[in-house]
Amino acid sequence: MASIPGHGSGLVPTMGALHQGHLALIQRAKEENERVTVSIFVNPTQFAPHEDFTRYPRPFEQDVEAAGSAGADLIFAPSVEEMYPRKTTVIRVLEVSDRWEGETRPTHFEGVATVVGKLLHLTRPDSVYFGQKDFQQCAVIRRMIEDLHWPVRLVVCPTIREPDGLAMSSRNRYLSAHERQTAPLIYRVLQDVRRDLLAGVPPSQAAHMGRKELEDNGLRVDYLTLVDEETLVPVEKISKKVAILVAARIGNVRLLDNLIVDGSPELSGS
Amino acid sequence: MASIPGHGSGLVPTMGALHQGHLALIQRAKEENERVTVSIFVNPTQFAPHEDFTRYPRPFEQDVEAAGSAGADLIFAPSVEEMYPRKTTVIRVLEVSDRWEGETRPTHFEGVATVVGKLLHLTRPDSVYFGQKDFQQCAVIRRMIEDLHWPVRLVVCPTIREPDGLAMSSRNRYLSAHERQTAPLIYRVLQDVRRDLLAGVPPSQAAHMGRKELEDNGLRVDYLTLVDEETLVPVEKISKKVAILVAARIGNVRLLDNLIVDGSPELSGS
Repeated sequence: MASIPGHGSGLVPTMGALHQGHLALIQRAKEENERVTVSIFVNPTQFAPHEDFTRYPRPFEQDVEAAGSAGADLIFAPSVEEMYPRKTTVIRVLEVSDRWEGETRPTHFEGVATVVGKLLHLTRPDSVYFGQKDFQQCAVIRRMIEDLHWPVRLVVCPTIREPDGLAMSSRNRYLSAHERQTAPLIYRVLQDVRRDLLAGVPPSQAAHMGRKELEDNGLRVDYLTLVDEETLVPVEKISKKVAILVAARIGNVRLLDNLIVDGSPELSGS
Repeated sequence: MASIPGHGSGLVPTMGALHQGHLALIQRAKEENERVTVSIFVNPTQFAPHEDFTRYPRPFEQDVEAAGSAGADLIFAPSVEEMYPRKTTVIRVLEVSDRWEGETRPTHFEGVATVVGKLLHLTRPDSVYFGQKDFQQCAVIRRMIEDLHWPVRLVVCPTIREPDGLAMSSRNRYLSAHERQTAPLIYRVLQDVRRDLLAGVPPSQAAHMGRKELEDNGLRVDYLTLVDEETLVPVEKISKKVAILVAARIGNVRLLDNLIVDGSPELSGS
């Protein structure tokens, strides 16, 4: 599905609390579409009971202002009752959802897939925009779109980072000042692992060293793994597009990040 | 969603082996739409391993001819490989799928909902047409469309019957001559149960008498039940729209039928 700049419509699904990462998605959508809808909906079904649904930040007026400045033509901010008059239909993406975040958060991706499905039907965009920061989420949505033959183009945009490398996230605001100083280590470790891999270090060893570096600095690592970027199955050697995924906790804040290792020959020595 | 006759597009999803019931759906779709697509796809995921997937009739040339004569503008007949390059995403409709057919065929409606979802995305109709004969299937699709905010209108068309009352079904051809003579009893019993209900017989008693009449004539009854027509939950009194659902076996052939009991006051004495 080719997109013709200046025509068509784009959707940027968000849970609000917009940061530069979201604004980059909106700007990209505006470059590629005539009309851009930004949805703001804190989706209860993707939170587990113990998670931060009620305290998730909801700075609605600021979000509307920021989205408009970035190029949004329409804000779609339904209530929970409008989105879920019932919760009797779910979309499940098997396999891609099962590992990594799926292990820690077993119902998370079912909630994500279902709400994105609803939003796609309600707004019917030509293209939908997600950030690479939530790598597994992108893989789940891609698989859902392909498997259900959804007539929409998925655009995954690069992760936007703070100057020190920390991936932007609405949850970064939960970090204490001290934790915030530690957080950029995650991205540095990802870069170290990629460098090691491209230098020929075996994947399991590179991952092990990365995990140790995080743990030595006080982070609790849920996973640091090398996976096929489409199936999210762990890889034992760098033969095609591989992603390094990490989930780690600093204090009570759980942070995700990732980096793609391009294992193609022309880059393997870079 | 109002439909403007002569505009828009309609989809009639079928598994082929078209009979008068299908042709009535196509004719209705053609009355209401400019373009009518008939899909012909024997969907493997809605058959259990022991069911009749491989021997399900596939008279493709006849089907194309019949669909065209009834008003189809396009036949969409994908291969299994085209529809299922993978089977990693499923749509599950909870509650409405669980009882009745769902008990006998636990994965059936997941297969139905998922394939209908794919077909709706692939053909993007304004309206989609199903026969009331498969009552629970219609309830599942209605719920899926509502829950996922699908931009399509569901049209449920009356059951088409043989002159002796047997509901048309592609599986009627499996009946022996003797079984075929017995089969119209199902519809007669449905009418008896409705008559009894409207005469004030308590639902459980009316259902019991109906089941006994079928069993006394050699049918094995999987269920004969009175349910709310939207939720498919059994009802104990006739207070709003209620359907009588029946599934019964004659020899090795399992037949479904149903009848709506309009329990509104103005009809309750008819």
